[in-house]
Amino acid sequence: MANVKVQIDGSDDIIEVPSGTLLNEALTSAGIDINQPCGGQGRCGRCLVKVEEGKIRRRSSLKLTAEDIEQGFALSCQTVVEGDVKVSIPDQNEIKRTIASDLKAVQVSLPDGYDPKISQSVKVIDLIIPAPTMDDQIDDWNRLKQALKQQAGYSNVSANLDFIRRLGVVLRQSNWNVSIVADFDEAEDNLELILSKKSGSISKIYGISVDIGTTTVSVWLVDLLTGKVVSQAVEYNQQIKRGEDVISRIIYSSKTEENSKEMSSLVIGTINKLIDRICNQVNVDRSEIVKGIIAGNTTMMHLLLEIPTSSIRMSPFIPVINQPPKMKAGELNLDINPLAVIDCLPGVASYVGADITAGVYSSGIYKSEKTTLFIDVGTNGEIALGSKDWLITCACSAGPAFEGAGVQHGMRATEGAIEEVWINPENFETDSRVIGDTKPVGICGSGLISIIAEMFTTGLLDKSGNIKLEVKSERIRKGDHGAEYVISWGKETKSGKDIFITMVDIENLIRAKAAIYAGFSVLADNVGFPLEMVEEIHIGGSFGKYIDVEKAIQIGLMPDMDWDSFKFLGNTSVKGAYFALISKDIRNEIDTIASKMTYIELSADNSFFEAFTSALFLPHTDLAKFPNVKQINIKQDR
Amino acid sequence: MANVKVQIDGSDDIIEVPSGTLLNEALTSAGIDINQPCGGQGRCGRCLVKVEEGKIRRRSSLKLTAEDIEQGFALSCQTVVEGDVKVSIPDQNEIKRTIASDLKAVQVSLPDGYDPKISQSVKVIDLIIPAPTMDDQIDDWNRLKQALKQQAGYSNVSANLDFIRRLGVVLRQSNWNVSIVADFDEAEDNLELILSKKSGSISKIYGISVDIGTTTVSVWLVDLLTGKVVSQAVEYNQQIKRGEDVISRIIYSSKTEENSKEMSSLVIGTINKLIDRICNQVNVDRSEIVKGIIAGNTTMMHLLLEIPTSSIRMSPFIPVINQPPKMKAGELNLDINPLAVIDCLPGVASYVGADITAGVYSSGIYKSEKTTLFIDVGTNGEIALGSKDWLITCACSAGPAFEGAGVQHGMRATEGAIEEVWINPENFETDSRVIGDTKPVGICGSGLISIIAEMFTTGLLDKSGNIKLEVKSERIRKGDHGAEYVISWGKETKSGKDIFITMVDIENLIRAKAAIYAGFSVLADNVGFPLEMVEEIHIGGSFGKYIDVEKAIQIGLMPDMDWDSFKFLGNTSVKGAYFALISKDIRNEIDTIASKMTYIELSADNSFFEAFTSALFLPHTDLAKFPNVKQINIKQDR
Repeated sequence: MANVKVQIDGSDDIIEVPSGTLLNEALTSAGIDINQPCGGQGRCGRCLVKVEEGKIRRRSSLKLTAEDIEQGFALSCQTVVEGDVKVSIPDQNEIKRTIASDLKAVQVSLPDGYDPKISQSVKVIDLIIPAPTMDDQIDDWNRLKQALKQQAGYSNVSANLDFIRRLGVVLRQSNWNVSIVADFDEAEDNLELILSKKSGSISKIYGISVDIGTTTVSVWLVDLLTGKVVSQAVEYNQQIKRGEDVISRIIYSSKTEENSKEMSSLVIGTINKLIDRICNQVNVDRSEIVKGIIAGNTTMMHLLLEIPTSSIRMSPFIPVINQPPKMKAGELNLDINPLAVIDCLPGVASYVGADITAGVYSSGIYKSEKTTLFIDVGTNGEIALGSKDWLITCACSAGPAFEGAGVQHGMRATEGAIEEVWINPENFETDSRVIGDTKPVGICGSGLISIIAEMFTTGLLDKSGNIKLEVKSERIRKGDHGAEYVISWGKETKSGKDIFITMVDIENLIRAKAAIYAGFSVLADNVGFPLEMVEEIHIGGSFGKYIDVEKAIQIGLMPDMDWDSFKFLGNTSVKGAYFALISKDIRNEIDTIASKMTYIELSADNSFFEAFTSALFLPHTDLAKFPNVKQINIKQDR
Repeated sequence: MANVKVQIDGSDDIIEVPSGTLLNEALTSAGIDINQPCGGQGRCGRCLVKVEEGKIRRRSSLKLTAEDIEQGFALSCQTVVEGDVKVSIPDQNEIKRTIASDLKAVQVSLPDGYDPKISQSVKVIDLIIPAPTMDDQIDDWNRLKQALKQQAGYSNVSANLDFIRRLGVVLRQSNWNVSIVADFDEAEDNLELILSKKSGSISKIYGISVDIGTTTVSVWLVDLLTGKVVSQAVEYNQQIKRGEDVISRIIYSSKTEENSKEMSSLVIGTINKLIDRICNQVNVDRSEIVKGIIAGNTTMMHLLLEIPTSSIRMSPFIPVINQPPKMKAGELNLDINPLAVIDCLPGVASYVGADITAGVYSSGIYKSEKTTLFIDVGTNGEIALGSKDWLITCACSAGPAFEGAGVQHGMRATEGAIEEVWINPENFETDSRVIGDTKPVGICGSGLISIIAEMFTTGLLDKSGNIKLEVKSERIRKGDHGAEYVISWGKETKSGKDIFITMVDIENLIRAKAAIYAGFSVLADNVGFPLEMVEEIHIGGSFGKYIDVEKAIQIGLMPDMDWDSFKFLGNTSVKGAYFALISKDIRNEIDTIASKMTYIELSADNSFFEAFTSALFLPHTDLAKFPNVKQINIKQDR
């Protein structure tokens, strides 16, 4: 076989190897250090390189997106060199970071044929108003209403006192030529006036779309005259200090009226901090922010609005309100134009909130020909199943294990969190990726999934999730609470203490994944639709951002489907809020989605417990449901 | 002629006099002191007695109401004894006080066929709501809406956040049997929810009707389940300390935003003080006060709502808004249920406000067959003329002279104010009635009218209003500012100094009365309706409460009509607000009245100046307009 040349971009090194050599082997032979924590099995994606020119053959590209491939990215362990090639070797951590930050700065495209003037509910209306005279003494308000009717065709107009307070001065200072910013409510056939200014002086108006997550709050600033996102910011929900998860916040806020008020101010404080940040980023006058759309789960929405949450937590789990009334920003103390209309998206039930209706909109499953599963895993797993013809939804109390809670070394996905782990199948040594490239502090959700999957596939865990103490590795040991497996030794960690996972942790995580998988099963059973026939799985939320599909399937958290069937949509909630902001038709569509979604209360469904019990195995009692996992080389025979 | 006996009730005295003797003469002959400041001409009404039994003949009963006569009251100077009689002699001051306090505690009758349940916009709705179950998990808000639709027929329902915040707890504590208090807006076809309570626990709900006068604020507390007034209170508008009249308050409030806010808090403070008083009087829980109707002049309404007033004062005199939007009590910091709907009555123009539309309603002129003149004299004189077929209105800037301002010894109608004066036509000595029966401090509006009328009819003033210095009386003298007439000598007054009226004062007052009379003329001319053909004159406002028609006609302030044509209606503004509160039809009727009233801007009307100039005489240039004044014995020949 002829030799071929591998040239490293940016250096003079040229490596000669036989044609057909794997790229990772070629690089390693020349002493170039390529990370291969998965042992060159194409599973971890950490040996990424960029083929600048030359002929290669890809064995597998499962870890790559179509875009990655188009740009020439390749996993060196899966790339066969078939001719002279030129490759560049990026710092792999750097690549990961780029991808991660791309995910944060979400790119969205405007809907086809989008015209902000027609699509949006917010209107800028220029009026030339006849000035009053001694013979024409009608009051300013009726004069304005007449002009709005005659010059813009709006018959029903309302404004609150603050608008009226400014009106007389603005009309006179502008010499009766004014621009009015107003929000048109089609259903009510009412134009709500927000801002009046001298004609021609309104060059920019903005809106915000907000997602209140239990853990993080996202705010996008949107130029309402173009429909484009001009700035994005994310911040931890300050309510975290009063409870990590929804349930503990309900308990805290239900104790006293002061607590309830505090919870509301904490999240409003968070939103205002984000508004401050986005306004500074792009130098926007906050009085020009005239509309807001808010999405979030039902508890977050209640806490925001200071509505008691206790009934959400107690059987039969009833929210006070799924569709809050429209409000003014001033009522909520939001630091934008106090007359900005604030519109909260509708929820469906106590545990399927506006984040999910927004998510279902963003995912497009409500209009898809393909039967699709939409999931948003946070503290709970919220699931919707359906297509353009039907939609069914449920929430499974998975618990916060995937957010790192209830796990000895668990933590949220912040700096120092181990987010991915690879176990060498030969010696059971570990390699891991840590957020922020620092010494590890703990393990976040994706890290935990990755650990269980790796332990299972490398034979350290049996089907029931028991750690096999008989395996010879110093990382397997007996601790205070039974068997445990060490991920990082104290000498490598920030605290100087070992980071490990215990049997108790593993049991918690298996219960959590079982709850979610059982949710899928019950939904599918409920409509008599075989889970295997689901064509696509859309994953929303930050959990979905970092999840490794292969590993999620291996532990039985996700159904065993082609990786191509999985789509990671990022924060579908804020995206839905954004689209509702820029288009009144989309806002109406989300109402339709909410009313169309049939909600299944799992705690009232007898089949749930059975499905849950069956899922308490790795990957599942019924291996027929996981044909690909069955096939892979699981070292359960050790 | 036979003798008859006059027995004094409560004493053993029996007076024998010839049949046909005047009662005052009979009493005087027996040494009983009866005040007769007008010299027994039946003009002052101060010799009032009560004829308990026996035969009398009344010469004149012009100073008496039909009710007075029915009760047996008689003016002793106008009463001929024709048989044995028994009379009681009340302390005349006491009688006056009783009348005055009757005027304060206004008696109103409910409209014919009034049924609070049908007539009022405020509804109490009892609902038995099916409790949620695991199979029926719709949210509390939609559950309530369903019940309101199915059990009470309301399809469009709205509530603000505060209502929703309480809803979940109330529904559960009441075991899903609730009473809802709500305000139904017929025009919007919308039920606005205010209060939710356990079923059967709402035994009382209340509303308030408020009149914000420039000088005084009135609040009536109304039992909404019966429509009856349960308490009334009046208080000086605390804004007075920032300006006595409308114009000075506009100037003050327009200076800075803080001033504008201060003016609003001052009047809200006044209203809250009154609310506090009425709640304590009848022991009402203020959360049960669920609706408010507010009337007041246009400036008062703007100041209340913190709407800039400057355009009201500057040509072309345009208010920002005549019909403010409905608000919640909480928005205005009113100390009642914060969700109470606050509805301001509509005004017509900068100087014809909601006090006048309310007044026109109360007076009934808008549905009268008779062409009627309605006037409300305060700082300005607001006038409406019309009948069931047409209504025309104007405001004349009479200035605050009738409120005592711009007059050397002028004061408001409070304790110590001389409110009526009689001049003995023989010796020009004075007698006067002082509010609170104390030593006099100054002269209020009705006192000033009375002084000018008496001076004119006794010959101390000529037609042009000049004091006749040639009249021989020590009370006529030359002061620092020309001629003056002493009403009370220093030895009788609180300050120890003389109280007198000057030529400058008289000129001011004549200008004020001329402006009002010119208003009448212009309105009448405008519709080509001779003023003489007006059939009734309705006088509203506190000014009207104390005014002496005869004297007002004598000075040419009021048209020369039969005294029977004058009706004193008291505070027609608060009365209108009351009726609008207890009946949604009446509330709509006031809207109709406002839209029906044609407003004439006098400053744009050339005929006004002419009419004003003609009225700058006592009573008028054209004596033909004042036939009765012409007839009386005016001692212009001295």
